[in-house]
Amino acid sequence: MTISPLLTDLYELTMLAGYLEQGMEEKHAVFDLFFRTNPFEGGYAVFAGLEPALQYLENLKFSSEELEYLRGLKLFPPRFIEFLADFRFNCRVSAPPEGTVVFANEPLLTVEGPLAVAQFVETALLNIINFQTLAATKAARINYAAGGARVIEFGLRRAQGPDGGLSSARGAYVGGVRCTSNVQAGMLYGLAVQGTHAHSWVLAFQDELTAFRAYAASFPDSSVLLVDTYDTLTSGIPNAIIVARELRRKGHELRGIRLDSGDLAYLSREARRMLDDAGFPEVCIVASNELDEYVITSIREEGGRVDIYGVGTRLATCAGPGGGALGGVYKLVEMDGRPKMKTTSDIAKATLPGIKRVLRVSSKESGYVQDVVCLEDDRPKPGERVFHPLNPLQNTLIPKDVEFQEVRQVVMEQGKRTGAGAPESLEDMAERSALQLSLLPKGCLRFVNPHLYKVSISGKLNDLRNRLMSELQS
Amino acid sequence: MTISPLLTDLYELTMLAGYLEQGMEEKHAVFDLFFRTNPFEGGYAVFAGLEPALQYLENLKFSSEELEYLRGLKLFPPRFIEFLADFRFNCRVSAPPEGTVVFANEPLLTVEGPLAVAQFVETALLNIINFQTLAATKAARINYAAGGARVIEFGLRRAQGPDGGLSSARGAYVGGVRCTSNVQAGMLYGLAVQGTHAHSWVLAFQDELTAFRAYAASFPDSSVLLVDTYDTLTSGIPNAIIVARELRRKGHELRGIRLDSGDLAYLSREARRMLDDAGFPEVCIVASNELDEYVITSIREEGGRVDIYGVGTRLATCAGPGGGALGGVYKLVEMDGRPKMKTTSDIAKATLPGIKRVLRVSSKESGYVQDVVCLEDDRPKPGERVFHPLNPLQNTLIPKDVEFQEVRQVVMEQGKRTGAGAPESLEDMAERSALQLSLLPKGCLRFVNPHLYKVSISGKLNDLRNRLMSELQS
Repeated sequence: MTISPLLTDLYELTMLAGYLEQGMEEKHAVFDLFFRTNPFEGGYAVFAGLEPALQYLENLKFSSEELEYLRGLKLFPPRFIEFLADFRFNCRVSAPPEGTVVFANEPLLTVEGPLAVAQFVETALLNIINFQTLAATKAARINYAAGGARVIEFGLRRAQGPDGGLSSARGAYVGGVRCTSNVQAGMLYGLAVQGTHAHSWVLAFQDELTAFRAYAASFPDSSVLLVDTYDTLTSGIPNAIIVARELRRKGHELRGIRLDSGDLAYLSREARRMLDDAGFPEVCIVASNELDEYVITSIREEGGRVDIYGVGTRLATCAGPGGGALGGVYKLVEMDGRPKMKTTSDIAKATLPGIKRVLRVSSKESGYVQDVVCLEDDRPKPGERVFHPLNPLQNTLIPKDVEFQEVRQVVMEQGKRTGAGAPESLEDMAERSALQLSLLPKGCLRFVNPHLYKVSISGKLNDLRNRLMSELQS
Repeated sequence: MTISPLLTDLYELTMLAGYLEQGMEEKHAVFDLFFRTNPFEGGYAVFAGLEPALQYLENLKFSSEELEYLRGLKLFPPRFIEFLADFRFNCRVSAPPEGTVVFANEPLLTVEGPLAVAQFVETALLNIINFQTLAATKAARINYAAGGARVIEFGLRRAQGPDGGLSSARGAYVGGVRCTSNVQAGMLYGLAVQGTHAHSWVLAFQDELTAFRAYAASFPDSSVLLVDTYDTLTSGIPNAIIVARELRRKGHELRGIRLDSGDLAYLSREARRMLDDAGFPEVCIVASNELDEYVITSIREEGGRVDIYGVGTRLATCAGPGGGALGGVYKLVEMDGRPKMKTTSDIAKATLPGIKRVLRVSSKESGYVQDVVCLEDDRPKPGERVFHPLNPLQNTLIPKDVEFQEVRQVVMEQGKRTGAGAPESLEDMAERSALQLSLLPKGCLRFVNPHLYKVSISGKLNDLRNRLMSELQS
């Protein structure tokens, strides 16, 4: 799916036209893409969306039809339309690989190049990275809540448009939910697809048992029977057990049952008992119905016996505190070699000036310790003093005996992918997020009042920030 | 954008394969698409998404590549893949026109035809209708909050994926927000596009005044200047006024200023005063920053002087109570000529059996009075007793002196559009929603504890429902 260059806010085009008119289009500019608050009031985010973002950048080209449309708006001079005809992406891009655990206030993507080009890609990059990262983060949270149990994403019917379902399935995979009901996502991204039947299957037959038998006849080795069309405990599960016995007599095994309403903790315990007593300890229990990380946590705390959680709406639409959107922004941090920052009365909305690196500080014993954002030529060392990114008065020391690792790499030069920007498998991204989440302090994974992982800025960056701030206020 | 037939849950395909194996694929089935709770805890919804849904149904056809993928899953018999190669949509579809005001528990789409076909389209229809209707409803609420002021949608950067931004812009138009920043939405759907500049424009120049002058030079008749990069009242607005004077001397007029942070009610009052005092009463004030119907209501209650509200994230992602998804469902209501219903211990999750019509009852004096859902051959009359759709004990009388109007029409026969299914302009849909919202009881438009518009079922439908319910429980 190629993204049109017109998938942008009009103001990217009006600014571009303005820069062209001012003769500023080739000035060297640097933009940072970052977010200011971790999504879902949580302790981290899982970065995702780099591959679709790079595909967008590689293919950026206005078609003649698109140029015709812009001409028809009667907003732009003819010279600008001609300029757009040759417009290509030709910047350097730095970014972490997908699946990297990231935090508020550290740059994710950095785009360096001609002002006109680097500015123009703002809206599309934000659109792609914001939602992919949000979906990956939501998936990681749900996966964590599920403990060892498997999670299947099946929110397509409630997703925000056709592509919302595809995007969320892809993002969810990066965050660790590797199975989906969405067949097109399966085909496009190579995800495992799963599914059973709806209530309508049961209603289409004269009774539940007949419906179960018919389904099992078609899928003797992969049937998961939905047991709540009439009554779960007195009808659905007993009928499923009858079918399980019939399947076994023919050399097959029922795969599972699905609970889709009622008290899932209680019903799953009862279901487990009934299935075990009937000699089917291997028949798995799938639970669904408006699940998310909070409900799954409750089900587990109440001793629920769920093997697979089917998570729909709240995963596909990334519902939760903060609600459905990651607030990523894209800010000018350098222009013509001079560091830039937006200053406002609200320091939380100020930006970190200059071209920066992100270092992850970790120790052999305790995993990730903190991240340090520093300037390009900056080499923070163990024992050095680093500063809070928003509060100039708060500071701390980098511990001794730690290692430093670059979080980001240059993934594009002059608009072409570098080796580090080569496509990766989703499998690799999912393994990366799983590994990195395991190295985070445990408290960062909590859903309520999580431990806030420290993101500091180096002394040099702090000095630059404070200097620019006082210059602007004087 | 053609929607792939693989944009579906795997279970639609497994059920289809099962029906084929059972020889049931041609049985006549009827499905209703409806929702059980009005979105956003509100008093209504604005129906949208019919045109993309009909396009999906018309174009439903598996490509050889898609069939190859399904074959490779090794889940289906070869006969089933052959069956899919000739699979086309050939059902009757009934629906309201887009922009119709609709309510919980009344059928929106009804699909009548061969079981295999009518079942298969469930997921995609829900995906399309759910989000379009949600976006149109959100837009109608925001538009209502804005009073006479104009609303611009500019949530693309936070929308749920590229198409999430396009879908929400389209839905928003149907609900009454007719202007967007999304250029591709402008091109695809013919929406008016608007936009100004970002903070980065200001930062790219040596100072704010230079930046404003440069922008005004490029767009002397359409400049809206963003005044909060440094300080709104002491820097942004005074600089904008300087530029407004310079423009006027050259025979142009500044279009507006935009406030994007701080107390928008206070700042807009101050801005209005400063602009008026300087002789610019026509310069309009645009406000943005995490707006939604609740914040806009507060700004107006506090005497804010905003002419145009720019609404981003919360419109594009349909944030709010209930959060980001309409819970539309698709349920079997008739099979082989026999009415069907899902019964559960929870009557709120029961379905209304049989093929139904939806009648809107209105009076000349007071507009819409109630909706009545009845059976196909049912002719409810003024004075007749009608029943609550969920509570069998609650009933009411249709008032005298009312008129009845069919809410839905047949839009497809045998998979081909009827006259009523012909494409409509978005303009017509937006006018329909505006008219119908004006005919609703005022209290239904309230955001908190809205008046719940009455949706009743006819005596005949109530009898059928009760009979099936007791048959199923016996």
